[in-house]
Amino acid sequence: MSARVLVVDDIPVNVRLLEAKLSAEYYDVITANSGAEALEIIKSEPPDIVLLDVMMPEMDGFEVCRRIKADPATALLPVIMVTALNEQSDRVTGLEAGADDFLTKPVRDLALFARLRSLLRVKMLLDELRLREETSRQMNTLRDVENRDDLLHGQRVLFVGEESTEGDLIASIFDDSSHVDKLSDSREAMKKALEQSYDIVFVSLSLSGSDPLRLCSQLRSHTETRHTPILVIVDNCEPEQVTKALDLGVSDYIMRPLDFSEARARALTQSSYRRYHEEMRSALEKSVDMAFTDGLTGLYNRRYVTRHLAGLAKDPSAEDRNIALIMVDIDHFKKVNDSYGHDVGDEVLKEISARLQLVVRGQDLASRLGGEEFLIVMTNATQENAQSVAERIRDDIASVPIKAATPEGTITVTVSVGVAMRESTSELPDRQLKRADEALYEAKRGGRDCVVIAA
Amino acid sequence: MSARVLVVDDIPVNVRLLEAKLSAEYYDVITANSGAEALEIIKSEPPDIVLLDVMMPEMDGFEVCRRIKADPATALLPVIMVTALNEQSDRVTGLEAGADDFLTKPVRDLALFARLRSLLRVKMLLDELRLREETSRQMNTLRDVENRDDLLHGQRVLFVGEESTEGDLIASIFDDSSHVDKLSDSREAMKKALEQSYDIVFVSLSLSGSDPLRLCSQLRSHTETRHTPILVIVDNCEPEQVTKALDLGVSDYIMRPLDFSEARARALTQSSYRRYHEEMRSALEKSVDMAFTDGLTGLYNRRYVTRHLAGLAKDPSAEDRNIALIMVDIDHFKKVNDSYGHDVGDEVLKEISARLQLVVRGQDLASRLGGEEFLIVMTNATQENAQSVAERIRDDIASVPIKAATPEGTITVTVSVGVAMRESTSELPDRQLKRADEALYEAKRGGRDCVVIAA
Repeated sequence: MSARVLVVDDIPVNVRLLEAKLSAEYYDVITANSGAEALEIIKSEPPDIVLLDVMMPEMDGFEVCRRIKADPATALLPVIMVTALNEQSDRVTGLEAGADDFLTKPVRDLALFARLRSLLRVKMLLDELRLREETSRQMNTLRDVENRDDLLHGQRVLFVGEESTEGDLIASIFDDSSHVDKLSDSREAMKKALEQSYDIVFVSLSLSGSDPLRLCSQLRSHTETRHTPILVIVDNCEPEQVTKALDLGVSDYIMRPLDFSEARARALTQSSYRRYHEEMRSALEKSVDMAFTDGLTGLYNRRYVTRHLAGLAKDPSAEDRNIALIMVDIDHFKKVNDSYGHDVGDEVLKEISARLQLVVRGQDLASRLGGEEFLIVMTNATQENAQSVAERIRDDIASVPIKAATPEGTITVTVSVGVAMRESTSELPDRQLKRADEALYEAKRGGRDCVVIAA
Repeated sequence: MSARVLVVDDIPVNVRLLEAKLSAEYYDVITANSGAEALEIIKSEPPDIVLLDVMMPEMDGFEVCRRIKADPATALLPVIMVTALNEQSDRVTGLEAGADDFLTKPVRDLALFARLRSLLRVKMLLDELRLREETSRQMNTLRDVENRDDLLHGQRVLFVGEESTEGDLIASIFDDSSHVDKLSDSREAMKKALEQSYDIVFVSLSLSGSDPLRLCSQLRSHTETRHTPILVIVDNCEPEQVTKALDLGVSDYIMRPLDFSEARARALTQSSYRRYHEEMRSALEKSVDMAFTDGLTGLYNRRYVTRHLAGLAKDPSAEDRNIALIMVDIDHFKKVNDSYGHDVGDEVLKEISARLQLVVRGQDLASRLGGEEFLIVMTNATQENAQSVAERIRDDIASVPIKAATPEGTITVTVSVGVAMRESTSELPDRQLKRADEALYEAKRGGRDCVVIAA
């Protein structure tokens, strides 16, 4: 997949060199000669990834990276730092500034392109979950944003390798509340990974006896482990293995000899991506739930049931399925609120919702239309089925008192119920609803606590 | 990225051959010997992609493909048909059955792997938008599912190539209500693509004068055109170009000589993916909006404003920013409903919401708390600012009548307003709200149509 790459370096020949390499691989390249210029371009024409030189006058690469990662609008933009030095300490500084990786000049093409593909794959997925700016702002109120260091707390970690000292070093990244499994057999590791839902997995690529890349590939092939961060541990001399591993979808690699700070920084970066991904998905799910359910009772809301009925009306496969509407309204509900307060009223609404939910079959749908009015939609139901459900609801509510904060500790209410069967496949939902509503009105006029079937 | 591939063929040696090839590239392979077995496996352990033999006894590959694509649960599962024949008519039958591509035995490795990567990339993106099953079901009520053939109607199409007869053939796929631009210059094509938001783009890879792959790569690098389907047109003898194009992110390819039915089937398939993608994103956005806005007035709802206030309370950068709460309640609103009906009541609520929206600055937030009660949250506001906004609201509503279906054609209402400034950065939102509410109560007691500032 092609993408837009921003190359930042104060030395023109370095810019041109990377530009030529990337352009030959059909990346769309934009360039900047200083940190300040880079930050401006990132705002005005956002790239998909940044290749960032470390040593620049005025603002160095570390600072540029820190600023990119500190701004929520660009925090997920992948940054690769490029440097002439290969000092462990520099690498750690860069990773701690939030860089995703660190490449040493002269940049080896294979390593660069594998890294780009891998980071871009993750970015495209995350972009997918980011909706309109306005929407994200709303959704962000649903995210539980925690501290980055929490990511090393209470984690489920899997280490797959033969060197127990390496396993110990990896384990020491996480605090005591975390659980670390150490295995040296790929097959066993795969089995455990499917059972345990690990938060992060480390795989040594020098594992003998079985092909560790196969394990990585299997982890990526199963839905359960598809998004779990995988960090591979490799010998410094095996760049081809790293390239292959990145193309299979592993998240990052750590070179031997293992350095604690580097391993920790890389684990943190990958865990942040995982957490962002989980939070976004969960926020989306919560917002969809909120849009379609009633906050107090958890039943479907009027919006959902209206759409559900419209869907049934349009669905040709629902043509011969009888549709019954059961409308339920609590009798004299205003009195409950007036006598005992809204808290007791809410308890009654919740308890009645729970009872309706128990009565409906899996294919049916219980909803709260608003106030003290509920609607049950039954498909594949005869008039006898619907009448018997309606009677059961009425009887159960009238005969079993509801626990509530009244002087007696309970309250007894009754409901009136109107039932309407769809008259023909051409009857529109609105008309059927109106007939159910009229039947309910009849029930109210008939003295309440009773069921009326629409003619 | 690794993935799980299902290989379906009734001849064991063919299965083993493909299995070996895929496995060597670290794909996770599962196999089936018949169409019936394949359909079962797809249900029990869903693969990411299916390689499907055409000629099988009992149920042939076409039928298996039709069934996969007819079931909403599996309609987005990519299917590549593999066949010993290379008949145009077979290819069209397969594509019309919903297959994503058609490979001829013996399968060339490069073509296969490029195709797998390209289809898997799209699938992973679409998977990202699919949430829990329950959530998708709710969200699906927001999708406008149209006919597949609508995708050839009213489309904006770009053809980039030199052969005007090819351009004509492509144009003839779409009906007269569509608009087709034909260009032969890459640079001009890119410029137009950024302006026009095309629904689909065709690029001839034999375009001279500029590198057509560069155009494809640029289309994929810009946010505006990232998800636009691109179909490239290639000479039969240039498989390397196809491989490169697929890796750059083009959606599909059509071999010369162009066949109308094949081009049409491929255009339809890619347009369906695009439409699914757009519908899912729009449904997600709509549901987030619904979760946080009031259906009648379009203002933020109580849920959102509560979270917004909680967010401000936690945000250290909001510490020194004064927060003002302005609570607005329509006077004697029950009378409006009782005298003129709920429709007039709703008109009043909508008009007042629109006026509130006009008064607030970009950084402020207007919400409907419920019923006839509204809340405005101002940040960076002095008490004078808040008081002046509150007065403006009160005055504007009292002095400009609202158009409504009353005998006079208008209705005049008044509002009472309570204002509370945050007392200190440690005051909790709930307490500040309570003070605004008390000020509002004072305004009601003081004769209504007035503003009271909390002490």
